Amino acid sequence: MKTDGVKLHPLASGDGPEPELMCIFGTGDLGRSLGLRLLQCGYRVVYGSRRPHSSAVVKGLNTLSAWALQNGLLAGRQVYLCGNNEEAKRDVAEMATKLGLTVVDKGSLSAAKEVEDFPLQLFPEWRMPLYVAFGLSAFFFLYLVIRDIVYAYVENDEDISYRIMISLANKITPVVSLIMLALCYLPGAIAGFLQLYRGTKYSRFPNWLDRWMLCRKQLGLLALGFALLHVIYSLIIPARYSDRQRVISNVLNEVKKNTTTPLYFDNTSAWRNDSLYALGILGFFLFVLLGLTSLPSVGGTLSWREFSFVQSTLGYLTLFLSTAHCYIYAWDRFLRKSTYKWYTPPDSMLCLIVPSVTLVLKLILVLPCVNRPLMRIRQGWERNRPKDEMGELKATNM
Amino acid sequence: MKTDGVKLHPLASGDGPEPELMCIFGTGDLGRSLGLRLLQCGYRVVYGSRRPHSSAVVKGLNTLSAWALQNGLLAGRQVYLCGNNEEAKRDVAEMATKLGLTVVDKGSLSAAKEVEDFPLQLFPEWRMPLYVAFGLSAFFFLYLVIRDIVYAYVENDEDISYRIMISLANKITPVVSLIMLALCYLPGAIAGFLQLYRGTKYSRFPNWLDRWMLCRKQLGLLALGFALLHVIYSLIIPARYSDRQRVISNVLNEVKKNTTTPLYFDNTSAWRNDSLYALGILGFFLFVLLGLTSLPSVGGTLSWREFSFVQSTLGYLTLFLSTAHCYIYAWDRFLRKSTYKWYTPPDSMLCLIVPSVTLVLKLILVLPCVNRPLMRIRQGWERNRPKDEMGELKATNM
Amino acid sequence: MKTDGVKLHPLASGDGPEPELMCIFGTGDLGRSLGLRLLQCGYRVVYGSRRPHSSAVVKGLNTLSAWALQNGLLAGRQVYLCGNNEEAKRDVAEMATKLGLTVVDKGSLSAAKEVEDFPLQLFPEWRMPLYVAFGLSAFFFLYLVIRDIVYAYVENDEDISYRIMISLANKITPVVSLIMLALCYLPGAIAGFLQLYRGTKYSRFPNWLDRWMLCRKQLGLLALGFALLHVIYSLIIPARYSDRQRVISNVLNEVKKNTTTPLYFDNTSAWRNDSLYALGILGFFLFVLLGLTSLPSVGGTLSWREFSFVQSTLGYLTLFLSTAHCYIYAWDRFLRKSTYKWYTPPDSMLCLIVPSVTLVLKLILVLPCVNRPLMRIRQGWERNRPKDEMGELKATNM
Repeated sequence: MKTDGVKLHPLASGDGPEPELMCIFGTGDLGRSLGLRLLQCGYRVVYGSRRPHSSAVVKGLNTLSAWALQNGLLAGRQVYLCGNNEEAKRDVAEMATKLGLTVVDKGSLSAAKEVEDFPLQLFPEWRMPLYVAFGLSAFFFLYLVIRDIVYAYVENDEDISYRIMISLANKITPVVSLIMLALCYLPGAIAGFLQLYRGTKYSRFPNWLDRWMLCRKQLGLLALGFALLHVIYSLIIPARYSDRQRVISNVLNEVKKNTTTPLYFDNTSAWRNDSLYALGILGFFLFVLLGLTSLPSVGGTLSWREFSFVQSTLGYLTLFLSTAHCYIYAWDRFLRKSTYKWYTPPDSMLCLIVPSVTLVLKLILVLPCVNRPLMRIRQGWERNRPKDEMGELKATNM
Repeated sequence: MKTDGVKLHPLASGDGPEPELMCIFGTGDLGRSLGLRLLQCGYRVVYGSRRPHSSAVVKGLNTLSAWALQNGLLAGRQVYLCGNNEEAKRDVAEMATKLGLTVVDKGSLSAAKEVEDFPLQLFPEWRMPLYVAFGLSAFFFLYLVIRDIVYAYVENDEDISYRIMISLANKITPVVSLIMLALCYLPGAIAGFLQLYRGTKYSRFPNWLDRWMLCRKQLGLLALGFALLHVIYSLIIPARYSDRQRVISNVLNEVKKNTTTPLYFDNTSAWRNDSLYALGILGFFLFVLLGLTSLPSVGGTLSWREFSFVQSTLGYLTLFLSTAHCYIYAWDRFLRKSTYKWYTPPDSMLCLIVPSVTLVLKLILVLPCVNRPLMRIRQGWERNRPKDEMGELKATNM
Repeated sequence: MKTDGVKLHPLASGDGPEPELMCIFGTGDLGRSLGLRLLQCGYRVVYGSRRPHSSAVVKGLNTLSAWALQNGLLAGRQVYLCGNNEEAKRDVAEMATKLGLTVVDKGSLSAAKEVEDFPLQLFPEWRMPLYVAFGLSAFFFLYLVIRDIVYAYVENDEDISYRIMISLANKITPVVSLIMLALCYLPGAIAGFLQLYRGTKYSRFPNWLDRWMLCRKQLGLLALGFALLHVIYSLIIPARYSDRQRVISNVLNEVKKNTTTPLYFDNTSAWRNDSLYALGILGFFLFVLLGLTSLPSVGGTLSWREFSFVQSTLGYLTLFLSTAHCYIYAWDRFLRKSTYKWYTPPDSMLCLIVPSVTLVLKLILVLPCVNRPLMRIRQGWERNRPKDEMGELKATNM
């Protein structure tokens, strides 16, 4: 497929019975699909050679996938245009609008290079979150291999390497998922404190915080992916050979005791075990709801109040349930000496740091004494600036 | 965030090379995002003070989320406009259409209050279904706490309170899910009988039925949510401490018998148990399909025949499978006296009433002798009204 | 519901303060919803009698669902128009575009019949994939009933018919899912070889390959459905009566041995079993990702490079993981004589043929020596045709 996109040249105005004539330079898949779509929209289409000697070229639309064009999946998508002739650009922009696209003017043809490079990027907004996910996974993988597999081999001289496939994966996925879910909400809390400190919401956040907040959605979706894996890994446990063998040997031990007393049923364990599962299930359920609202077609149907309710209220509830789920799992492990193999803290302890901090920060922010001023700031009030200076457009991130 | 939305004032016509000038009153997040988007669409934007001294003000767009604006998720969304100057309103409506919005004219500025209140509502169309869900859940929670936990404590003097976390939740979720699924299809059946009785589809339904039918989608999605919870709760069972203990004690009992005969395998139990699961799984699978088609981006790609096939045929099949699933679960419990603790019927019996009624009503409606006249009515035929009087637009709910 | 769709007749131009007047023939649900929507868009609507005596009828929009109209789910949808009066057609097309639709001109009114028949088709593009799914399922159902149930009854005289409900379904679903997933990618590989052989991408593929490639998405989604069923069926296993009985009898056998040696733990079995599950889980996870990107609202937001990465790279990774999952399941069964009941190969062997072939073909295509020329062909290079002949529009399938 050719990546140099499509150059368009409007030849005739759309007035009168005669439909508008568009000249497409580029006969790649994209050019062909675009041509078909334009014909369907009542344009007349001409395909030009690769070397336009003309006159009034508009460069753009190359971020579209031929596939999306052929399937009419253009509604609301952004496209970039650049060109030296304002009129031609407006004609193309109008055509793009007819296709249901949203046009972003990138200025003169000098921006063509930038516009051309755009579709070469692979999921640019996903890069940072993916790095975070891979980094955390790699760290906890090594950490757990040493703490579990190697430790068991060195100290107890037993080979439990098979656990890498599922047991380990089922420790890594929840840990990474919980941390990344917390990382979605941490920047919002930090931003809140920053706005309180600055007394305004209209001054830009530092770049690191800005970039962080812009990839919250991706962080959350990756966390959801890890959570889904964790759920399936956990549900498969009873079907595993190793688990079944353990059950059988448990029974055999009970049998060897050869006692007449019925099996002891520990109510505390039952409570703890069921609460662990219940919290996890509810947390995951809310997490799935969050994920659904991040689907463009769903999120787009929410008013801002509904969206903020889902993303903020439900989001924090999800974080709280997941963190509680993890606390119940860690339970009394913190106290047992056997937990600290080779004097290292357990993974369940490490992964609780970020979520706990996030929840504490949020707790402070929702205290009436802190929340009231913050709300006023977020509604546009500024501590040390008169109202009437707020005329011009300023970027804002909340 | 400010909720008084955005007032717009078109200052110049869009003709000529000069792009149209829009004046936005309101510098909140929404105003800012809207400004950015308009700039991208080739408008010139001016931000006005909070107190417009100008006349031709159009009020609206405040149902949009700044988030949706920033992410170009506007395709096909409805927005409300009101204003006293028709021309200005048309200009704004045209702009909104360019943004991919669908405009609903709410008349003069006197409607501004109504338009302003709209975004303050939180999921208005979800309220009733949520009440139903909460009501049913609360009722069955109390009912089951008394029937299971309290009963066991009083009669057998055993503490099984830990079952509240999962066992009880796993009884409440399927019960509520099944009833609410039936409540999605009951109004349609009632409407059918009403149309048969009236002999026309063009007279409005009573308001209660009208409102009921308008929230079928939400009822169904909530039911799907409960079904999902039920599935996860059921799949986690074998991993539960209490369940494992029961397995072990079962084995110990078998061992104590100390017989040489192999373990008795009851084919009927195997059949019943597997059918129970199979029906549940297939029902849930179809239910998920129904949920997917209710996604705007999916449902919107279906022709009316496809949509009615999915929502009606597949929907009733889902209801049938789920009800059968529940009947197999209840099985012979109905006959055992032990089922009627304290002379109360089991939850599995209570939850079967609504679905059974719905399925019977539908069964009657699909009988050829009943179905033929109904179909003619739904195609516009009216028992006691001449054809040619059908010129003007009438509301219809089917 | 009436299927003869809607005929529209624009009576007045939209210029001036007076809004455009549209005359709708057809007072069915669709006509009514359309009227409402047009009124909302600022048109004036008149409903005409069934027998237009007029200047200029445009036929179309009947593929829309009244439901989609009422819910404003029209963005980016295709509609067909036909009519004898070009001007009237353009007016209607413009109106349709305002509704966010994409118009396809079907020419004169003589095409009305074709346009009318369109909405009567039920999921036309799903037909072939559904036939494949049903065919495969039916074949493997019979094959497995004979190989498992009948065989056990005839040879060992034991009745395991209860296994039809879940055990058999859980063998059919994965087998069909894997084969259909492979069938999504096989045509692409064949097309690659065809393009290499022809030395161009601009000549049409044979019709069978063309149709095959056009239903890849549906094949994949059906495969995903079967995979989901397989996952739930597998997760429910430990909760099944038959499974629990087997566990108990296993223990009883262990007890009867009455040895003092601890239960033997086979590390190879543990490794193999966990790898089986891990590969399956990861494969399913990627499969779900693929399914999500096939949602219009998600896929439409991807640039072609992102989309091809997901559908090709992730797709082949999914196929590879699933095939490996199946190979590990089959494992050493191939060697055991007991596998070949009545001299028939096991289902796990049959279902590995298509995926293996597909993966081998792909492997050849990605070899640098093969891949380089193919890439050049796909970028428009043609072995035996001069560049400058490529001016006009040609259909292309890749």
